[in-house]
Amino acid sequence: MTELPHHRPHRIDVPALDRQIDCREDETLFAAARRAGLRIVGACGGRGHCGSCIVRVTEGRVHREGEGAHRKWLRACCIQPRSDLTLEVAPRSLAPIVRADVRTGGEAAPLPLDPSLTAVELTLPPATLQDLASDADRLRRVLAERAEPIEPAAIDWAASAALPGVLRQHGWQVQARLRQAQAGGPLTVASVARPGAPLLGLAVDLGTTNAAAFLVDLASGRRLASLGLENPQVAWGADLISRINHAIKEPDTAEALRRAAVGAIQSLAHDLTRAVGAAVTDIADAVVCGNTAMQHLLAGWPVAQLGRAPFVAAALEAVDVAADRLGLALGPGAALHLAPSIGGFVGGDHVTALLATEAIWQAPGVTLVMDIGTNTEISLVHDGRILSASCPSGPALEGGHIGSGMRAAEGAIERVEVVDDALRLQVIGGGVPVGLCGSGVLDALAAFVGAGWIDARGRIVAGRHPSIAEVDGVRAITLAEETEERHRLIPAVRFSQHDVRAVQLAKSAIRTGVKLLCAEAGLDESQIHRFVIAGAFGAYIRVESARAIGLLPPLPPAPDGTSRFQQVGNAAGLGVQQMLSSRERRARAAQIARQARYVELSTRSDFQKSFLQHIGFGS
Amino acid sequence: MTELPHHRPHRIDVPALDRQIDCREDETLFAAARRAGLRIVGACGGRGHCGSCIVRVTEGRVHREGEGAHRKWLRACCIQPRSDLTLEVAPRSLAPIVRADVRTGGEAAPLPLDPSLTAVELTLPPATLQDLASDADRLRRVLAERAEPIEPAAIDWAASAALPGVLRQHGWQVQARLRQAQAGGPLTVASVARPGAPLLGLAVDLGTTNAAAFLVDLASGRRLASLGLENPQVAWGADLISRINHAIKEPDTAEALRRAAVGAIQSLAHDLTRAVGAAVTDIADAVVCGNTAMQHLLAGWPVAQLGRAPFVAAALEAVDVAADRLGLALGPGAALHLAPSIGGFVGGDHVTALLATEAIWQAPGVTLVMDIGTNTEISLVHDGRILSASCPSGPALEGGHIGSGMRAAEGAIERVEVVDDALRLQVIGGGVPVGLCGSGVLDALAAFVGAGWIDARGRIVAGRHPSIAEVDGVRAITLAEETEERHRLIPAVRFSQHDVRAVQLAKSAIRTGVKLLCAEAGLDESQIHRFVIAGAFGAYIRVESARAIGLLPPLPPAPDGTSRFQQVGNAAGLGVQQMLSSRERRARAAQIARQARYVELSTRSDFQKSFLQHIGFGS
Repeated sequence: MTELPHHRPHRIDVPALDRQIDCREDETLFAAARRAGLRIVGACGGRGHCGSCIVRVTEGRVHREGEGAHRKWLRACCIQPRSDLTLEVAPRSLAPIVRADVRTGGEAAPLPLDPSLTAVELTLPPATLQDLASDADRLRRVLAERAEPIEPAAIDWAASAALPGVLRQHGWQVQARLRQAQAGGPLTVASVARPGAPLLGLAVDLGTTNAAAFLVDLASGRRLASLGLENPQVAWGADLISRINHAIKEPDTAEALRRAAVGAIQSLAHDLTRAVGAAVTDIADAVVCGNTAMQHLLAGWPVAQLGRAPFVAAALEAVDVAADRLGLALGPGAALHLAPSIGGFVGGDHVTALLATEAIWQAPGVTLVMDIGTNTEISLVHDGRILSASCPSGPALEGGHIGSGMRAAEGAIERVEVVDDALRLQVIGGGVPVGLCGSGVLDALAAFVGAGWIDARGRIVAGRHPSIAEVDGVRAITLAEETEERHRLIPAVRFSQHDVRAVQLAKSAIRTGVKLLCAEAGLDESQIHRFVIAGAFGAYIRVESARAIGLLPPLPPAPDGTSRFQQVGNAAGLGVQQMLSSRERRARAAQIARQARYVELSTRSDFQKSFLQHIGFGS
Repeated sequence: MTELPHHRPHRIDVPALDRQIDCREDETLFAAARRAGLRIVGACGGRGHCGSCIVRVTEGRVHREGEGAHRKWLRACCIQPRSDLTLEVAPRSLAPIVRADVRTGGEAAPLPLDPSLTAVELTLPPATLQDLASDADRLRRVLAERAEPIEPAAIDWAASAALPGVLRQHGWQVQARLRQAQAGGPLTVASVARPGAPLLGLAVDLGTTNAAAFLVDLASGRRLASLGLENPQVAWGADLISRINHAIKEPDTAEALRRAAVGAIQSLAHDLTRAVGAAVTDIADAVVCGNTAMQHLLAGWPVAQLGRAPFVAAALEAVDVAADRLGLALGPGAALHLAPSIGGFVGGDHVTALLATEAIWQAPGVTLVMDIGTNTEISLVHDGRILSASCPSGPALEGGHIGSGMRAAEGAIERVEVVDDALRLQVIGGGVPVGLCGSGVLDALAAFVGAGWIDARGRIVAGRHPSIAEVDGVRAITLAEETEERHRLIPAVRFSQHDVRAVQLAKSAIRTGVKLLCAEAGLDESQIHRFVIAGAFGAYIRVESARAIGLLPPLPPAPDGTSRFQQVGNAAGLGVQQMLSSRERRARAAQIARQARYVELSTRSDFQKSFLQHIGFGS
């Protein structure tokens, strides 16, 4: 008898997560985990590039592809099961389970309140054999009879669909949701809801790596909750260009990427509304910002022309579309507003960052606004002119594509110092270090360069310190040895030569962007009066470390002695909320996008020279 | 061994159609035929009520439900297979395969031309590294530079989605489709298409029993083709109330009915565009009219409140919705306009009939406009007032629910006379009679009443003529005996007592409607100056026959000797085409709908009395 290939999937047990999943012999553990919704980090989408998905097989046999037989910790994307397995996932490879943060509201400043949607509560006369008017006409009549009469230009299709049911289930009471895009412009009945329903809006900052969403009460302008989620598109690559190339090569992939983005927003909407005891159908309006690639993919627009020279967007202006046309199920008739973009990859998320920091850059002098992320956007504001550019900085600064990289979560090393040739670490939560988050990566590099463990060209100096050694053929500095805690084995935390190179590329790309954008305006970077660092990552970095490694320019303090650098946090998230709660802010965003001029830096003749000049740590 | 029930489906061979279909033992042949798309007529949707789906089993065994063992011709909805079968379908039970009629254009008067969509052909400057404007901005620029500059208020989402592909596939040439709902109002770029693409519109008259569609060239106002199709919703019942009750009882059914209507329109769009060598994506605009129930079901609006007292519509005003939101795939960004309705079941199809006959009823005096169908709508126009009502007249007058009823197709008896106690028949196509179409039904009844074969109360008089006999326990007049032609067996054509009753109910309902609507206006039906008979069925009836049986009132000729009756054909179809090709006509339809007052006749105290008065043939 011939033995048939083993086609029954193997059972993969993950005791720490209390999960069991199936994995076929022809798929990797990473693919099976993604399929089963098991939250393993995978910055490169399972292509074996980043090493962020590491696991340990405690029982069973596996087939290894490019993973030496002696290794204990394996990349889940490089192994396939050959028997049932028991698996341990490295703590830093576990994607965090984020819960909606309902505290946001109280802490932040109130949003400007002038929404395009308002709700009015109405009681309609019941239909009788003597009064056979349609439900829509009945609604019009009551609106016209108010103290301040309302005469809608139209009752939208979705409103008419919902009206008969609501009226008869709620004793002829109904909440009408009125949309008026511009003050004084035509007003329509966009939808109707049960009487007293909350009128909610959803603001989404759709980043390349993470999506952040905010639930806003459109009646009060109050933030109700916020929530973050990994952008599920990372399965098609951590960076924009990988995803665009996938979408260009395989037509189905563009649609899959679109669905992934829609699915993420849908899931955020669901979890946020559940957290405040509301329903997804209470969301009547939504605004989404992202870089141009994210916005194109979400809108289902082609990206071929965006991903290849001369890198042109389908459209940069803001777009309004019924949410259901994108397959997004919010409230009946809910609209989706896509923020306006500037050009290249400088998209709606940078416009919202500019919107939220307007008070800073409207002051006289030169302001630079930078949003550090997998893609970094920079705007230089001077004399009422806005010049904008983008740099592909990669995920290294966010802890992605870094061997021991992880998110800023419990166990992450966030501060590194070398004092008297000894390492000092600060760990989020204070426990055992399990990985390095973005700010820790910057700190580590600055500290190691400062101590001479890494030389001016970026090479780790062999023998310079006992923590430096060759591991799997690559030189690395060990920050924490493998350890065991509460019967869990925790892999060593190391900073390797590969990691140094990744950060060098990122920091040089960003610094070159700053320098050339200044040159484009006829300025030198030393003339920058205010340097605004926006973005979640930028909020946590140590400016001294970033300056020390040359990511940020060495600006002297302001005449009053204060730093010229301002870390403003997630400005894009704040801006997109403002666009949701205020028509004036929405119009202002359109103005800013029109006012800004996009500069393509990569075609400047001095790009390559500047990039090479900033790759090291000499200056 | 226990014999297991026979679960493998049986093979049903239909040699005349060159088709083989599968049928399980637990389903009827009718259900299997519908599932397989085999076109068997089924006026009652397979519930055994109408007898329009008759077949003959020439080989094999069947299980019969309520069909006597001696019968040769069986209702397909009452039999299940017990072996493989060979089947013959009665000629009158074959739904016609209608082909798109591309001759319509030349014969009819041109449509008014003022469409909401216009196309402009543009050549855009290519994107270069020196000109990085988005495709949408490039389009705006070229529109603004025209001799008559165009400044769109927005470029729709769907247009931006299609723009990059078209530009790069067609050497930067593109057709922009501009939408402007009102002359002088805001203009948007609704979509883009390949250069030189035809700009097509689709007008649909969605009737309870049949859907008629018209393809119009929006650039010239020329009708390109027309096509009819059975409304697939008949599977849920021939009449409105059956379908509404299905939709109310089973929530899934409402969606199934909606999909059926969308599917019919999609199929009409496909066949029409193929007939003229165009593509479905060339359709940029669509207008649909139907009675209120049809329009509600198509829009996905609830019908519970429409089907139960006090019979109230969700909305009567016209509705604009993106076609893709209803699941209808036309051109990118195609809009769907649902015609305004008047009230009750007097829907957009009656408004369009009024629109198309405006020249007639605008003349001084009293005009009655009637559209005879499964549901019959009547409007009385007098002194600028329009009173409208509807009567549930059932499908009998269209040949449905009549034992030997069929469509007006080859083999249908369309004229019946009794001369010297002998039958004279006129058959469409001149061949062997296979059934009775609507005009033949009216003629037959008038002839039989005139000859005394049917008495004043509607009873077929036994022994009055050799063609009168009891068949399967029901008295009937045989118009044609069973015969064989070209080796096909053709069942007898009979007019039974059941059929007489069905026509009596229909004609009394209609006549009562006319009378009570006149009474509502303080008039007598004798005061009607012009009696407009609209609708496909109304175009073919003999007015004398309809008067003889009391369906129409006995109006004397006009002073100039001409008849007061005018048969205008499918006015609703003409009106919906006008709404497609002209914004002025669209606005006028809205005015007419607002001007008309809906009258609920069934709640009038004299309804029952009038109905009983007109059921017989005495007056």
